This record gives sequence, C-alpha cells and structure tokens, in this order.
Amino acid sequence: MALALDKEELQGFLDEVFPQVKGEFVVEHVEDMYSEIRIPISDKHLRPGGTVSGPTMFMLADVAVYATILAMIGKKALAVTTSCSLDFMRKPAAGKDLMAKCKLLKLGRVLAVGDVLIYSVGEDKPVARSTMTYSIPPK
Amino acid sequence: MALALDKEELQGFLDEVFPQVKGEFVVEHVEDMYSEIRIPISDKHLRPGGTVSGPTMFMLADVAVYATILAMIGKKALAVTTSCSLDFMRKPAAGKDLMAKCKLLKLGRVLAVGDVLIYSVGEDKPVARSTMTYSIPPK
Amino acid sequence: MALALDKEELQGFLDEVFPQVKGEFVVEHVEDMYSEIRIPISDKHLRPGGTVSGPTMFMLADVAVYATILAMIGKKALAVTTSCSLDFMRKPAAGKDLMAKCKLLKLGRVLAVGDVLIYSVGEDKPVARSTMTYSIPPK
Amino acid sequence: MALALDKEELQGFLDEVFPQVKGEFVVEHVEDMYSEIRIPISDKHLRPGGTVSGPTMFMLADVAVYATILAMIGKKALAVTTSCSLDFMRKPAAGKDLMAKCKLLKLGRVLAVGDVLIYSVGEDKPVARSTMTYSIPPK
Repeated sequence: MALALDKEELQGFLDEVFPQVKGEFVVEHVEDMYSEIRIPISDKHLRPGGTVSGPTMFMLADVAVYATILAMIGKKALAVTTSCSLDFMRKPAAGKDLMAKCKLLKLGRVLAVGDVLIYSVGEDKPVARSTMTYSIPPK
Repeated sequence: MALALDKEELQGFLDEVFPQVKGEFVVEHVEDMYSEIRIPISDKHLRPGGTVSGPTMFMLADVAVYATILAMIGKKALAVTTSCSLDFMRKPAAGKDLMAKCKLLKLGRVLAVGDVLIYSVGEDKPVARSTMTYSIPPK
Repeated sequence: MALALDKEELQGFLDEVFPQVKGEFVVEHVEDMYSEIRIPISDKHLRPGGTVSGPTMFMLADVAVYATILAMIGKKALAVTTSCSLDFMRKPAAGKDLMAKCKLLKLGRVLAVGDVLIYSVGEDKPVARSTMTYSIPPK
Repeated sequence: MALALDKEELQGFLDEVFPQVKGEFVVEHVEDMYSEIRIPISDKHLRPGGTVSGPTMFMLADVAVYATILAMIGKKALAVTTSCSLDFMRKPAAGKDLMAKCKLLKLGRVLAVGDVLIYSVGEDKPVARSTMTYSIPPK
C-alpha cells in the first residue's frame, strides 16, 4: 500500500496539529504500516531517580501509532485513541533519547491497532511496550 | 486498615516528589483503599477540538493510584508502575476539571492494583477508565 | 433505560447461542447497565493446585459483558469482543463458584465497554477484574 | 542464553501439567526467548458463525507465554499469570489451526512479560495479539 504522507509531510502535519509539542517528536522513518518516532529527552520528561516519566512514554506510544495511521490514510486530525495497554519493563538509560518503533497490526475501516516497542536509543532491549486502538472517523 | 498518610500529608508528599507538577494534582478525598484526585484543566492539557489530551488522563490515573497506595503504606517514592490499561469512552466536558476516583483492588506485598474512573467534575458518566499495576519495593 | 431482555429471556438466549456451554452460566441478576452472572465450578475448570483456570475467568468476564449488552439492546448474536484487559489478583477460594459483577461503562452506537469484577461466591475481595470492549454491528 | 528445556521436554512437561488438555497444544518451535505453539482447531473451539472462541485464543496466548518462560527457566509449574491484554483483530480463517508466535520481552527475577501474535496457519495477518505478565515464584 502506498504511503499517503511521506516522512516530511508527516513531520509537518504533527507539528501543525500539536503546536504545543512542536519539535518534541521526530519522525525518523516511515514505511508501509510502520514508523519510528524519536523523542529528545530533557529534564521536563524526568522523574525522581532520573527515569523518564510514564506520561512521556504514553505520549510517545500514542503519537507513534497516530503518525503511522496518518502516514497510511492521510491527514485526518480527528482519529482518536479508544483504548491502550502499556507495560513498563526496564528503566530507560540515563541521558538517552527514546525511540518508538510502531507496527500497525490492523488498519480497518473503523478501527486501527498499533503495537509499539520503546527503546533507549542504541539499546537492544525495550524499556516499554504498548498497544493502542484508534477509532477512525467515517469519510 | 488505618491510613498511613492523611489528606494533607499526601498532598504535601506529592508536591515534594513531583515538583515539576506541583499544584497540578489536588487530593480531594482519601480513605481506606480509596481516593479522589482532581486536576485543574488549563490550555496546556488540551488537544485540537478542545478535548483533554490522553497523556493528561494517563498521568491523572497514574498519580491517583500512586497516591492511594502511598496513603496506605506511607512514603515510598520508589513504587513504580509496571503496567496499565486505559479506555477512553467519552469526550470530557469543555472547561471542566477532571476528577479521578481510585479504588485499590489489591495491595499485596509485591504488587498493587488500582482501578480508576475519570469524570468531568459534576458529570455522572465517566470519560475514561484505567487499571494500573504498581510494583512495591521490598522493605 | 428499559431492559430489552429480562433475566429469563437473557438466560434462554445465552443457552441458545452457546449450546456447547448450556447451563454453565447462570444469570443471577440483571438491571439497567448491570448484571451478575455465576459459573458453577467443577473439576474441568481447575488447574494444578486447585485454582480456577485463566480461560474460565476470561470466559466468565466475556459472557458477563456480552449478556449485559444484550440485556440492553436485545438479541444480537453478532456483537464481538474487540479487546480486553484482565488482572488476576487472588487465588479463588477452593470449592466455591465464581460470580461476575458487570457494569457497562459505555453503550455507544458502535462500541460498548464493560467492567467486571469476579468474586468467589461469598467473599468480599475480588479474585480478578476485567474490561471488555465489544463492537456492536450496525442495524 | 541456553534453553533449560528443549522442544520435546517442553511438550512433555505441558502434557504432564495440563492433563485435561493433553495433545491440545503442539510445541512447533522453541529458541532463545521465543516459541511457536499450534492448537489444532476442532468443533469444541468454535462459536456461532464458525469463528474460534475468545477463551480458546486467550488459552493459546497464555500457554504460549508460559511455555516460553519454562523453556528459559525450567520446570516451575507455579508461575502464574498476573495480567493480560488481548486484541481481537480479524476473524480466523475457517478450518485452519491457530499458531501463536510468542516473544519474551522481559524475563526478570520476579516478573516476565511475553508478547504473542496469533495467526491462522498459513495466513500472514494476525487474528489477535496479546501481552501476558507472569509472576515467577522465588527459588
């Protein structure tokens, strides 16, 4: 299936739709039903002990699935998350950005399901995993 | 079971542990295995269309379970979220704060499980629900 | 909202739709957006150590949400589970039936969400909790 | 990491621990932190419309994670499921067995997390996905 948005278009659309977090999410790669999104970690994402906060990881997983859906179906700002599961498995490495690797498992007419693994950049064991279900608005 | 922290102690501890979000979470009520936590909603929590962002609701649910655990076992900043599920069911009412009502379903030696319903203040149908599992550090 | 099916009608419909498990699920109570379903536990539901198997608890939660939806919208055998989360919190009491207490949190046009607590009959602490999302077929 | 149990030992142990379902789960492949388990589908696994029942898919995912953990740590019948999430994405193909492909994402001292994709044998799109968390008993 051809991409509806390429990497630059996707980055531009995310920055436009989420102006509050412009520059926070970097589209590193996008292909058929798959994307990689990086979040540069700064102090505001940290919790006591130097770990990245849960809401930061939730947001990264959520944005990664949203971005992968948009890359496939084009600009529909109104796709909404209906449910999610998240498992936090390891403490992220200090001072490293986080990378979400997102695979769309289903892209139906009404529902889409994306699976995300989150890594500290350069590490090979995931720090977290997430599944997000999105409801896609009717045309 | 007696509370280890009352409402004021709990509020103080949250503000101390999460200085970045001081004042964001208001402990409205706490009792045995149960608490109510309110988050005053401002522009930074909103998404296009005026809806409260998913990460804000994740954070509220997460803090509510954390707070309820601490109220029972005392100040242990190192309890960590190991997994969560979240369902987003309705659009929050515009211009209203969100209230999390959290019930601890299990408070074991190693794991605690809390269930949260999130409401727009004054509404009777929940906008979201969440279950959070926390790992409790050994003494 | 008036019930589309009362207790007897609901029991009859479950037995008709799931002939393989006829008599396995007993509708104990049904009201607006809520039901209680009991499963008589026998050897086939047990695992080593005398505990009730996970699939039995999954099935009970699933049937409880399905039944509660049907009680509200009438006989639609084609409502299907799209996602679920389950937390196993305590070992069920030996020799006791399990009771699911199910509350529908959302009954939308397309999606329904039900929350279930599962108890050993007569005990006050839940052995498991579950949230099930159902997709409702268009009319 | 070396396997504690090879394919034949794992099959033998599953048949011994779950005598009620002996022969229901076929260990097709096992390697470091990964396994493939097949369930031969017969009438008892079906629901109206010819689809495989939810509890059957739950059980398959659960057994696949359990088996993969045991392959790594050896015979410990008492590892127990503490939580799970499941997404049902497509209707399984009629008359085909189901295959679970399970990857352990974490194998800690206390908790293990496994991710499972379930396929109709020979198809390339998953019918379901699941994450299971197991609690591992202390030595």
